[in-house]
Amino acid sequence: MSQSEIGLIGLGTMGAMLALNIAEKGFAISVWNRTTEVTHRFAAEAGELAAQITPTETLQALVASIRSPRAIILMVPAGQAVDDQIAALRPLLDPEDLIIDAGNANFRDTNRRAAAANGYRFLGIGVSGGEEGARHGPAIMGGGDAQDWDRVAPVLNAIAAKYEGHPCAGRMGEAGAGHFVKTVHNGIEYADMQMIAEVYGVMRDGMGMQAPAIAAVLDDWNKGPLQSYLIEISAAVAGVIDERARKPILDVILDRAGQKGTGRWTVIEAQHLAAPIPVIDAAVTARNTSARLEERRAGQAVFGPAPELLPTDALTLRDLEQAMIAGKILCYAQGFALISAASSDFGWLLPLPDIARVWRAGCIIRSSMLNDMATALTEDAGRNLMLAPFFADHLKACHGALRKVVAAGATHGLPLPALASGLAWFDMMRTERSTANMIQGQRDFFGAHGFQRLDGGENHHGPWAMRG
Amino acid sequence: MSQSEIGLIGLGTMGAMLALNIAEKGFAISVWNRTTEVTHRFAAEAGELAAQITPTETLQALVASIRSPRAIILMVPAGQAVDDQIAALRPLLDPEDLIIDAGNANFRDTNRRAAAANGYRFLGIGVSGGEEGARHGPAIMGGGDAQDWDRVAPVLNAIAAKYEGHPCAGRMGEAGAGHFVKTVHNGIEYADMQMIAEVYGVMRDGMGMQAPAIAAVLDDWNKGPLQSYLIEISAAVAGVIDERARKPILDVILDRAGQKGTGRWTVIEAQHLAAPIPVIDAAVTARNTSARLEERRAGQAVFGPAPELLPTDALTLRDLEQAMIAGKILCYAQGFALISAASSDFGWLLPLPDIARVWRAGCIIRSSMLNDMATALTEDAGRNLMLAPFFADHLKACHGALRKVVAAGATHGLPLPALASGLAWFDMMRTERSTANMIQGQRDFFGAHGFQRLDGGENHHGPWAMRG
Repeated sequence: MSQSEIGLIGLGTMGAMLALNIAEKGFAISVWNRTTEVTHRFAAEAGELAAQITPTETLQALVASIRSPRAIILMVPAGQAVDDQIAALRPLLDPEDLIIDAGNANFRDTNRRAAAANGYRFLGIGVSGGEEGARHGPAIMGGGDAQDWDRVAPVLNAIAAKYEGHPCAGRMGEAGAGHFVKTVHNGIEYADMQMIAEVYGVMRDGMGMQAPAIAAVLDDWNKGPLQSYLIEISAAVAGVIDERARKPILDVILDRAGQKGTGRWTVIEAQHLAAPIPVIDAAVTARNTSARLEERRAGQAVFGPAPELLPTDALTLRDLEQAMIAGKILCYAQGFALISAASSDFGWLLPLPDIARVWRAGCIIRSSMLNDMATALTEDAGRNLMLAPFFADHLKACHGALRKVVAAGATHGLPLPALASGLAWFDMMRTERSTANMIQGQRDFFGAHGFQRLDGGENHHGPWAMRG
Repeated sequence: MSQSEIGLIGLGTMGAMLALNIAEKGFAISVWNRTTEVTHRFAAEAGELAAQITPTETLQALVASIRSPRAIILMVPAGQAVDDQIAALRPLLDPEDLIIDAGNANFRDTNRRAAAANGYRFLGIGVSGGEEGARHGPAIMGGGDAQDWDRVAPVLNAIAAKYEGHPCAGRMGEAGAGHFVKTVHNGIEYADMQMIAEVYGVMRDGMGMQAPAIAAVLDDWNKGPLQSYLIEISAAVAGVIDERARKPILDVILDRAGQKGTGRWTVIEAQHLAAPIPVIDAAVTARNTSARLEERRAGQAVFGPAPELLPTDALTLRDLEQAMIAGKILCYAQGFALISAASSDFGWLLPLPDIARVWRAGCIIRSSMLNDMATALTEDAGRNLMLAPFFADHLKACHGALRKVVAAGATHGLPLPALASGLAWFDMMRTERSTANMIQGQRDFFGAHGFQRLDGGENHHGPWAMRG
């Protein structure tokens, strides 16, 4: 009996889709799930792909069915389940066998697991694209030793999404580097989604548009610089009429946003690295605010109905599109600067152009703009993305619209936390002379922290007569 | 020979000031420093307080000089130095002896140290007020067992700042509760400082005012609802003329803000608790942005000079004052809501009204508004502060000015990240119907996360024809 090319543990939605994708690309795969019934049902429903799939009932049988040196993908819930699965698997493995954690791990856990790998090899890979991506082509961000990545690269490249023929898969660096990049991807995803929600709000509440009309606008934007999966699906969501309620489904969905933690991780890691990502901060915080429905209700009772309809000439749909373009560039400039900071701080040498390339297809934030970003980062990976000529030109053309939109939102009670944070950051980043001199003066006054002088020298103190 | 009431380890600036404060209040205190020379210099310079002070040259001598059961304050740098000091001290102590960490510990370290205390008792206390506060009356936020707090409360109450006779010291709860409250205090401090820097920027860049004129405005505000230590010292800083440069010292101070980590901790803990504190987020992030001076310079070169002078009738100084009042209320509402979330999550039962009371004097964020907050939280500690009638009335009167200021900043390139974040949060918190329904629609589309329907029921899914 011939052995499988690869193994996979965990046949939940993502694991099952990934296994089918692997089988479809011509690789023999062995699968195992804690509940044997799930394994058999999966194999039974695999149709013509079943010939490529070996269902196994025990970990021993799984391991025995894979050709040596083995490669086994884990697709189990992030956290303790991964450690438990590794502990169960380890006694069955040879030193050259490779465990690949393809779940949504925190990169610090992946660093820890890579460092603790003993008697087996270890890769951590971030997989983005949801259920559909896993089945037909996700983006794959790997971390671990190059030799381990190279061993499974034929499989990963085959199952990954393709952008003009190039697989959206790559090794980002050592250990947790892949999961780190995936985390930042998700933080950007939060920000993209929030900015779309904000302009949706301007159209709905500020312009009095109904969901189908909003869908048409988003569809239109999807043909321009904003072309992206998230704009596309937002248009699709806005266009759906709910059968039960006989009105747009958006008007039926409760406005309390959930999260699974990767956005939060991005914010936390950016704080550790002192890397500013205010658009992502605002997006994650907006979800947390949306969850406080009872307080919002109480707030509306006290502070009256908000927001207001905009005066008819206040904003055009073109203003909104341009504001989104500016906001998106600013958000990605922050995201890539965060990756850059991590690259230095963790000694990872993260390949910024490759990251943009990997994100061009398969993943949730895929967009045409990412191809332009790959180009700009290839020219100069050390330059802030907003300073690359292509994006600088976009920003010069669009920041006026972003100003109009943010000002209109502020005036008329339309909350635009992500877009407003992006604009404030842009204005901070385009002035050599900020207002942090006041903060340094205050800090020296109450804490004797000292300050640098513009005319030279470190650690000066003011003659604060009021002190002491 | 009579023994001291209390001991203190670590005669850096804060430790020395605290020791003098304790001696001045009539308590005999033994002190020790790693460098003996520092100890002797401290005692020699203590003047008439020297009679109350016993300098010691060894830890053994320190311990022997304190009456049993002993209480010993640690004022050493946060982090490993605290653990090292505890390890060195522990073998010399009796089980009822009490170690009090008065440094700027991360509350998670304090939780860990409290849990590991073995053969001694342990308190963690946050001390705010800078050098001057430590010397003449800080605010003190304690965490640990009530019996341990009670034992040293006479000393702590005596040295604490007084607000209308009431000591600004209190036990906040178990273990790390005091250091947690101190962390949030510091996060709010960052936000207060940033909002002042922002309106300073509007006056300087938007209104073309010179620092002495700005000082006069801040002095004036300090007589109204904004009365606070930070406004007072900002006025003082703005009023100082640098002798060397013969111009306002603010125009000499480099605008690159430092930080020591407590602001970052606040942001991180808020993310763990899913508690929105966007004004603090923006303030910490603004410091990080200010640090990127080279990039800001490059940004100015590409995107031209920012910001612009405002049209003369765009904003009044009264608008700025009212915007600050609104921003401040929103920031504190977020901060207290964070404390509330921590209280539930950590099972601490944090006494919100007492926290506001402790903050009324001694600490960096002391202000007259904190007295009103203590009153509002005493009425109903579970209610969001912005909904308390006193503050709701202020917000109703002032949010219009906040809108004008934020809109003017957006239009004219004056970055107001904290004020803008506060306004966006306010508008999110006063609408029952937000735009997070779009986010829930997107999440269900690509990740099958499900959503609640407004017309009832959990975990519905949309008929997303495009999927799969």
